[in-house]
Amino acid sequence: MITEPAKMSNLELQDRYTTLTNHYERFQQQNLKLNMARGIPCPEQLDLSAELLGCLHDTDYTAADGTDCRNYGVLDGIPEARKLAAQLLETSPNQVLVGGNSSLTLMHDLFVRLMLQPLPGNKLAWGKLGNVKILCPSPGYDRHFAICEYLGIEMIPVDYLHDGPNIEQIEALVADDESIKGIWCVPKYSNPTGITYSDDTVKKLAALPTKAHDFLILWDNAYNVHHLTDTPAPLADILTACSQAGHPDRVFVFSSTSKIGFPGAGIAMLASSERNISWLKKQLAIQTIGPDKLNQLRHVRFFRDRAGIEAHMKRHAAIIKPKFDLVLATLKEELSGKNLASWSSPQGGYFISLDTLPGCAQNVVAKAAAAGVILTPAGATFPYGKDPHDKNIRLAPTFPSMPELKLAMQLLALCIELVSIEQELEKRRSAKLAVHDF
Amino acid sequence: MITEPAKMSNLELQDRYTTLTNHYERFQQQNLKLNMARGIPCPEQLDLSAELLGCLHDTDYTAADGTDCRNYGVLDGIPEARKLAAQLLETSPNQVLVGGNSSLTLMHDLFVRLMLQPLPGNKLAWGKLGNVKILCPSPGYDRHFAICEYLGIEMIPVDYLHDGPNIEQIEALVADDESIKGIWCVPKYSNPTGITYSDDTVKKLAALPTKAHDFLILWDNAYNVHHLTDTPAPLADILTACSQAGHPDRVFVFSSTSKIGFPGAGIAMLASSERNISWLKKQLAIQTIGPDKLNQLRHVRFFRDRAGIEAHMKRHAAIIKPKFDLVLATLKEELSGKNLASWSSPQGGYFISLDTLPGCAQNVVAKAAAAGVILTPAGATFPYGKDPHDKNIRLAPTFPSMPELKLAMQLLALCIELVSIEQELEKRRSAKLAVHDF
Repeated sequence: MITEPAKMSNLELQDRYTTLTNHYERFQQQNLKLNMARGIPCPEQLDLSAELLGCLHDTDYTAADGTDCRNYGVLDGIPEARKLAAQLLETSPNQVLVGGNSSLTLMHDLFVRLMLQPLPGNKLAWGKLGNVKILCPSPGYDRHFAICEYLGIEMIPVDYLHDGPNIEQIEALVADDESIKGIWCVPKYSNPTGITYSDDTVKKLAALPTKAHDFLILWDNAYNVHHLTDTPAPLADILTACSQAGHPDRVFVFSSTSKIGFPGAGIAMLASSERNISWLKKQLAIQTIGPDKLNQLRHVRFFRDRAGIEAHMKRHAAIIKPKFDLVLATLKEELSGKNLASWSSPQGGYFISLDTLPGCAQNVVAKAAAAGVILTPAGATFPYGKDPHDKNIRLAPTFPSMPELKLAMQLLALCIELVSIEQELEKRRSAKLAVHDF
Repeated sequence: MITEPAKMSNLELQDRYTTLTNHYERFQQQNLKLNMARGIPCPEQLDLSAELLGCLHDTDYTAADGTDCRNYGVLDGIPEARKLAAQLLETSPNQVLVGGNSSLTLMHDLFVRLMLQPLPGNKLAWGKLGNVKILCPSPGYDRHFAICEYLGIEMIPVDYLHDGPNIEQIEALVADDESIKGIWCVPKYSNPTGITYSDDTVKKLAALPTKAHDFLILWDNAYNVHHLTDTPAPLADILTACSQAGHPDRVFVFSSTSKIGFPGAGIAMLASSERNISWLKKQLAIQTIGPDKLNQLRHVRFFRDRAGIEAHMKRHAAIIKPKFDLVLATLKEELSGKNLASWSSPQGGYFISLDTLPGCAQNVVAKAAAAGVILTPAGATFPYGKDPHDKNIRLAPTFPSMPELKLAMQLLALCIELVSIEQELEKRRSAKLAVHDF
């Protein structure tokens, strides 16, 4: 039984280090080329939607209201697509916009609009204010953080608790600082922690007393229907919660079919108050004549309704649940009892969040890369790419095959132990030097 | 033979007015509902691309380089789509980006980026400068002007000559004013004038000495292959011209398949210097993971290459040339010899530009609308919607059927004569009052 490095004698530590280094060199000789950096569906998942590709034929291009979907127009999406989106986002179609193939674009573009144009009821756009800050529960989604960094918006990290971001911490921050204009949230099966916000968290966010009267909740419900179990975590409806708390204009909800149908050719959706939607549509009219309505029609024809999507998601789960299980089992097999890492056991979503000992994540990711396994860069899950404890690693189990995944996890576990021992050896060396210094 | 109102006696004028008013009332009784406001292909044109809709089948989703087009990625478009775009834009694939369904979005987003981020070699984004001005050859495309107005960019109208915008006027403007940062151009079959820029104009624009070192040519080549004759107007290659003039980074070229395949579900393209493309890609990576590659693949499968598109455009011309001819014939029939209007005879593109007598356009458009024919709002073809002479009306002949078009043009001619006579009557009435004032 291998114990944790800190409890080993110098000799045990050296022995173990030699053994692991040999293992690692054998991995290097395999010339692995595996990429687990991003949450990407595997080809078998995409095959589930094969019929989506060709489901419109030569004369099937007319929306329910008679719109020729081939032609120009319909800024906010065809009625049946907005109906489907409203079912997914649990709101009414008049509070929904359906766009192109990327909810990231909807988020980016909202931020850009906020930089350039004041929200209804405001005098100045964010870009005209001296400073704008956004709360970033972390570890979180690197692409959210990239939008803020790109626009020069200051990011304030907020800790995660087991049922969402630390509300007390948030309350203290927003009470006095008018420049804090919003919070990024991935409320269900959060990227990467897997956390789902509790009803209480949702309610408190909706009711949050904020110094900024125009505080926004950026609610990226990317994993809305992406369950790994038959008993999905419930998530309270933020739109209703905000309305009931007297802040109907506080929230923008985002989602897409990217990890339901085809990641590159899905439909993205946004929900908010009717006031916000009408504000958005005025601006959208400057940017486009309308989204790809044929692709929206394709999705409605193939998925039909929420029930159709839910049935489809079970087929996804059947493919990817075994991959999550394999990752968890391998981590347990290789690392349990060693006190070198802890990890999440998500009930849905696309990621497993793993924490190494403090100060090890960057070296672990570099070592895995040097043996051919690309992981999400360490630090990526924190604002500015800076993990204060250098310990979080995001694992994306869906894309690799099972045998690849097994290998990659064995290598990862090896790298974690190797780097932890290197760190312990270094610590002891420094301590010895420090003694000699006297 | 009806002569022009200014040469009629008071009695003749009153008689003619009564006759026309009766005609107009008969039009009103027909309850027409025709919309000629926008350049929209008709259903028969869309049917030409029927096979584009279903041309990908269940297992046809792989790009030439092995990319699974269903999945995430490929920021700048799949290689074969970039190759096709490069053929259309007469440049190399590494100077091309292929995006989503809208070149308007590419233009809007470029302007937004310029507001927020400095171009390579610049210190400040446009949004950080006190004032930014853009030259707007007019009459021009209202959606270009809308982008500027939305972003608070000052528009300076520039006159059109027969072979492009007035270069002398432009030279005088840009020589001393560093805040003039660019010029909008629709260089081929211009919207709405139908003008194609001469080689000399292209060369002079490329070589233009400007006070602003970061002056940009926004080259919206929307009607690149949209010929109405078998002897298309040649357009010099602006990318090469700019390069040769020592301004390789001066131009952004835009185009799309919107009026080639399906207006709502086409692919948009942009070309510029490699430096600009690389600057754009860095920003694009914040906004999206990639465009809809399946739709790009669809277009490559269906159109194959430039020759495929050119053959296809001849089929478009066969449908819409008779509509242009009908509009021109009806205008001639109804208005020739009356000195009430002049109009363009375009060799391509989507519009006929009509000029009434000064001060009549708004009333003509309103009168046509009151009888059920919606035209582009008068003024729309000028910055801020303000036609200084209130005379330009843009006609979009492609969407209505031939019988509708005939009716709409008869009504338009009637409205032009009616409004011109009203103006003449009003002038004489004022003159009479002025005499009585003595």
